[in-house]
Amino acid sequence: MGSIAPTLPELDASFIKVTRTTTPREVPLPGSPEELSHSHCTDHMVTVRWTSSAGWDTPEVKPFQNLSIPPTASCLHYATECFEGMKAYRGYDGKLRLFRPDCNGERLVMSSQRISLPGFKPEELKLLIAKLLQIDGPRWLPKDRPGRFLYIRPTLIGNGTQLGVQVPKEALLFIIAVPWPDPSQKIGLKLLASRPETIRAWPGGFGSAKLGANYGPSLQFHGQAQAAGFDQALWLFGPDRQITEAGASNFFLVWDNKTTGKRELVTAPLDTQIILPGITRRSVLELALSRLATKQVGGLAPVEVVERTFTMDELTQAWKEGCIVEAFVSGTAFFITPIMLIRDGDLDITLLSEGERAGYAAQIKTWLEAIMYGREEHEWAYVIEGESEKNII
Amino acid sequence: MGSIAPTLPELDASFIKVTRTTTPREVPLPGSPEELSHSHCTDHMVTVRWTSSAGWDTPEVKPFQNLSIPPTASCLHYATECFEGMKAYRGYDGKLRLFRPDCNGERLVMSSQRISLPGFKPEELKLLIAKLLQIDGPRWLPKDRPGRFLYIRPTLIGNGTQLGVQVPKEALLFIIAVPWPDPSQKIGLKLLASRPETIRAWPGGFGSAKLGANYGPSLQFHGQAQAAGFDQALWLFGPDRQITEAGASNFFLVWDNKTTGKRELVTAPLDTQIILPGITRRSVLELALSRLATKQVGGLAPVEVVERTFTMDELTQAWKEGCIVEAFVSGTAFFITPIMLIRDGDLDITLLSEGERAGYAAQIKTWLEAIMYGREEHEWAYVIEGESEKNII
Repeated sequence: MGSIAPTLPELDASFIKVTRTTTPREVPLPGSPEELSHSHCTDHMVTVRWTSSAGWDTPEVKPFQNLSIPPTASCLHYATECFEGMKAYRGYDGKLRLFRPDCNGERLVMSSQRISLPGFKPEELKLLIAKLLQIDGPRWLPKDRPGRFLYIRPTLIGNGTQLGVQVPKEALLFIIAVPWPDPSQKIGLKLLASRPETIRAWPGGFGSAKLGANYGPSLQFHGQAQAAGFDQALWLFGPDRQITEAGASNFFLVWDNKTTGKRELVTAPLDTQIILPGITRRSVLELALSRLATKQVGGLAPVEVVERTFTMDELTQAWKEGCIVEAFVSGTAFFITPIMLIRDGDLDITLLSEGERAGYAAQIKTWLEAIMYGREEHEWAYVIEGESEKNII
Repeated sequence: MGSIAPTLPELDASFIKVTRTTTPREVPLPGSPEELSHSHCTDHMVTVRWTSSAGWDTPEVKPFQNLSIPPTASCLHYATECFEGMKAYRGYDGKLRLFRPDCNGERLVMSSQRISLPGFKPEELKLLIAKLLQIDGPRWLPKDRPGRFLYIRPTLIGNGTQLGVQVPKEALLFIIAVPWPDPSQKIGLKLLASRPETIRAWPGGFGSAKLGANYGPSLQFHGQAQAAGFDQALWLFGPDRQITEAGASNFFLVWDNKTTGKRELVTAPLDTQIILPGITRRSVLELALSRLATKQVGGLAPVEVVERTFTMDELTQAWKEGCIVEAFVSGTAFFITPIMLIRDGDLDITLLSEGERAGYAAQIKTWLEAIMYGREEHEWAYVIEGESEKNII
């Protein structure tokens, strides 16, 4: 049958090699400057090297340390990099959980392909994270302090030494974990609508992949928004000013549709390929469909779930007619956070008054937290077994 | 007059600190695997650190070495990175020259601003490169081997430890130099026209800045083109399929305009902000305007210089009518290289037959080389004085 192509080693978490730190770092207190820095990582990290000639190398858990990167590395010049944002949750039952980690694995593979980096079996990502948390979980998320989380950042970079503009021949997957301030203390976000001269993504581009290339170029307008007192940009697209994303989160609107007489939960569709297919977004839609679509819950009227293109003009018109119930963002970093205000040019659109509560956002958040922290048994939660003995390094 | 904001130190090449290598590397031979690797750098590199609190640090020339980068660095996650591509030329008079380095300095500052990295006085870049080449020039571009060049890669990366999506608070400017294969051995390029599902850049995006974010996402289609036997992608944009760039180079067409009866040198305009404002592009236009617009040169009919949007359909139509004289790309990596063929779907557009010469491209290349290698005294050439004694490390 002719020659058979040699099969290169795949990413395999079961081979992992562990080197423990001998100098454990101090675990920062909630609200401390170290936690607010978003950069005080846990004691260990995962690294796995890949080359086009030898495939995936043996994964390693090792002490957190700087990376030694050649000045000619692809990731420093051509943005050959993609990542995931996840959290590990310490449940009220003492267990450690990830939330839908297979979805993150699948998305990282998709992103990796878009930026010409190697593929792997999505479930291996989950297993690598589990190895890291088996070691760092006990100290950094103590069992006697439930309801807390660590932010997990799996990252894949092209680090071959090749200044020519070419598909990378070497890559490094690394996973770090970092204490992260609790976003739920934010009552609501203020958004500044983007202008035509600053567009986040475009059909045929890469807005639907979690690439570094989507974030850096957005910092310019983000910085302007922050300097003007806003939390995030509201990214509009096209001459009709479609609402796409808010900052690095997906955007949801609850409104009463005057034409149909129905209350709707609306968000931008995935088929244009310009928004990120958020895992929290997907979960919000699935929960709304299964729990909010047919019956009243906690005083909230049922909503119809609608994924469609909608515009800034539609939002403004509905707001003027008093039809908007609430708006919120979804994502790992900001979780579920209501929108207080959108500034669009000279117009301030207030969506949440002083002391008012965004009921749908609060309900969905409560359901998600119940799953994440083990108050509700659910298939979306993945329990990490086999944690080290507490405080042993 | 109220308080005066503290002035942070600016980038200043005159303070440079030099640490010479004690283990000089071998200089690769032309055409050797080391040279073809595009990654065998010279003995030294320049690095300069910047922080938002303390401004630019003292520049250093030091032995070429890997960079120590925190896993939380902005450049690894959010593509906060931009670069320049330049060359240093060993002239036939033994002198070392850069070509319009102030233009590169200005463009790097513009790119840096677009990706939220720090600014500096453009001429300092030239002075830093001069410091590097004063040391590495004599061994890596020996005076007794004129007509050769080194590729120079100034790069600016955000390397603060900050996982939050924010404007970087730390940055690193580094400059490396690397022997590069001579692109002029390529007779002509074969281009594969891009499809609507893969676009390089868009209005309101960042296609006109030299950001890493423009390159990595283009590798997917570039890889497909190479696998199908092509050298580069021809990047089209919009429903009317505007011709924007070829690979990472600007694209030029010489054709006889049937309507006006004039011969034209056409390239895409800068005002749409989707193509890179190439320094070679600008030089081609300026040379054509000053030397090719009014009189016949070397048998070449005069051309009118035209910067305007033109489409794949226009090119195809002109080709079918026999009106296309030649096409070529311009850039630092590929310099001036003719186009042999464009494949657009099922159509193969042959622009250069076997044994045929692209006369305009050849003439412009000859003029540019004369300036780069000191055969013609010209304000575009910047001579680097003060080289170290030959072979002294």
